[in-house]
Amino acid sequence: MSDLLRVLAGETPERTPVWFMRQAGRSLPEYRELRVGTRMLDACLTPDLAAEITLQPVRRHRVDAAVFFSDIVIPLRLAGVEVEIEPGRGPVFAHPVRTASDVDRITAIDPADLDGTAIAEAVRLTVAELGDTPLIGFAGAPFTLAAYLVEGGPSKEHLRARAMMHADPESWAKLAGWLSRVSRRFLEIQRDAGASVVQLFDSWAGSLSAADYRTHIAPHSKAALDGIGLPSIHFGVGTGPFLADMKLDGIASAVGVDWRMPLDEAIRIVGPDTAVQGNIDPALLQAPWPVLEAHVRDVIARGRGAKGHILNLGHGVPPETDPDQLTRIVELAHGER
Amino acid sequence: MSDLLRVLAGETPERTPVWFMRQAGRSLPEYRELRVGTRMLDACLTPDLAAEITLQPVRRHRVDAAVFFSDIVIPLRLAGVEVEIEPGRGPVFAHPVRTASDVDRITAIDPADLDGTAIAEAVRLTVAELGDTPLIGFAGAPFTLAAYLVEGGPSKEHLRARAMMHADPESWAKLAGWLSRVSRRFLEIQRDAGASVVQLFDSWAGSLSAADYRTHIAPHSKAALDGIGLPSIHFGVGTGPFLADMKLDGIASAVGVDWRMPLDEAIRIVGPDTAVQGNIDPALLQAPWPVLEAHVRDVIARGRGAKGHILNLGHGVPPETDPDQLTRIVELAHGER
Repeated sequence: MSDLLRVLAGETPERTPVWFMRQAGRSLPEYRELRVGTRMLDACLTPDLAAEITLQPVRRHRVDAAVFFSDIVIPLRLAGVEVEIEPGRGPVFAHPVRTASDVDRITAIDPADLDGTAIAEAVRLTVAELGDTPLIGFAGAPFTLAAYLVEGGPSKEHLRARAMMHADPESWAKLAGWLSRVSRRFLEIQRDAGASVVQLFDSWAGSLSAADYRTHIAPHSKAALDGIGLPSIHFGVGTGPFLADMKLDGIASAVGVDWRMPLDEAIRIVGPDTAVQGNIDPALLQAPWPVLEAHVRDVIARGRGAKGHILNLGHGVPPETDPDQLTRIVELAHGER
Repeated sequence: MSDLLRVLAGETPERTPVWFMRQAGRSLPEYRELRVGTRMLDACLTPDLAAEITLQPVRRHRVDAAVFFSDIVIPLRLAGVEVEIEPGRGPVFAHPVRTASDVDRITAIDPADLDGTAIAEAVRLTVAELGDTPLIGFAGAPFTLAAYLVEGGPSKEHLRARAMMHADPESWAKLAGWLSRVSRRFLEIQRDAGASVVQLFDSWAGSLSAADYRTHIAPHSKAALDGIGLPSIHFGVGTGPFLADMKLDGIASAVGVDWRMPLDEAIRIVGPDTAVQGNIDPALLQAPWPVLEAHVRDVIARGRGAKGHILNLGHGVPPETDPDQLTRIVELAHGER
């Protein structure tokens, strides 16, 4: 069994397994070359392209896991929602979902009808090439999807989605419940095609109060993962105030930790029954290697007290990252430096 | 003495004083009308315009304080730094400050040379109209200024500024120390022209770890306020993990609290010697009044345990806010609803 799967099964491998969120993507010259002339969502839905992009960082960095190259809005696109990724901006929806009738209209789509053919094919191609390296399946969490969908695009503090929770809690629950089923379906497609781990990304959960997270979000995120039948990682940014809730009542095998909190402090909050993933500060990828090295060694040392530790960044790889810095981190984690 | 000044002096007025960050600005139709044809930074530097914009929300909402209409990059512009506000984007610098020699070049400017004539004139005009209502002077904190200046514009997680702290701590300290003196000078100009409170805005401090905040930021923010001779409010967003540090060793008269934490919890962290300001969730301004009213009543009730409480939002007024919602909050705080 690979080191990553062993950590998620509660074992303690000798080496700390490592992968990087957004390892497949803009930091790699081979990715930028491959993407020329292809729009982001089209790349995600072209099986051989998505598979190749997923494999690139595994070959280059020798990370302990591949993460399926996709975008959190892909399941919505597959459900027939009009969405495009604007370069330099992010996902933009033709029809924001703001009113009760908007919610009624979008939730009338049955997540079971989502056409997963291209995704399943991409996952199969990837897994066939990966050998023993596990593939992590990928989905956005209901709140992060809603943060885009209600606003209609990226926003700083996700005011419209957070307003809906209080102004119209019934519509909110209906929308979040539907998004949970959409994400679940997307994860199941990846699972059935050969992914061996799933990660739920709640990148924007940090704009929520702990009370709102518990009442309006956690049950929907839990439903997306509960009973999926694979080990799972639940990731958020700025979620320090409700990190224990990110365990989703013990459903998540590992909880992601951003760079704001020392990992040993996060481990005390998460407790002895759940592994952690993180928490290299992405800002330090810009620092000279000796500075970054000292930081990574500190993270690995602080991670020793956890039930299990998967080394990763506290958020995704910034596009301007020198990929050699990532390779060095892998070598360090593997005891080759 | 006004209720706001009484709270900051440690007294307990009968009514909770209230004002709103960004109350002067885009949520008001009279502001949008006045700004037609004038660029943001030019408006800030035109005394009668800046004064009128500062006064508009006081007339309309009858808030307990005016906050000087300006922008955090104004002192940099006055120091000769090339910066413009791009509508819909934010401050953009012609020459980002990224290297040691960039830092040497910008810090060669003496903050004492900053030309405060237009600012002083605007403050005098404002104070003459305000009567008993206090004017809050305004400056950006060194980290938030650096977050823009090092990046060259707005950024999500302020990677370049945070990288500099670790990659070149000497240059960082030099830059942050200089920014602290620039902000201090800007506050002094407002103080000398008649402002009776100052607020230091560290809007982006929430991207920092508590350890980085303590080591690389707090001393510089403290230097900007220490000995200023006026009551002071120190505000940040997402600063829950180091809220006690935001007191700056007791220099700040009040600490701002965003919407992420219940106010009574923040008060427990801040302790009995410092007032608090906040923490209405700006998202709820979009909710129907009964929902917003219940939230505001809850915030006021939770604030009763503080040394003193200034009612405010947890962050600035969003541009799309219905100004009547703000007026209703003032009426509620003043016992007129």
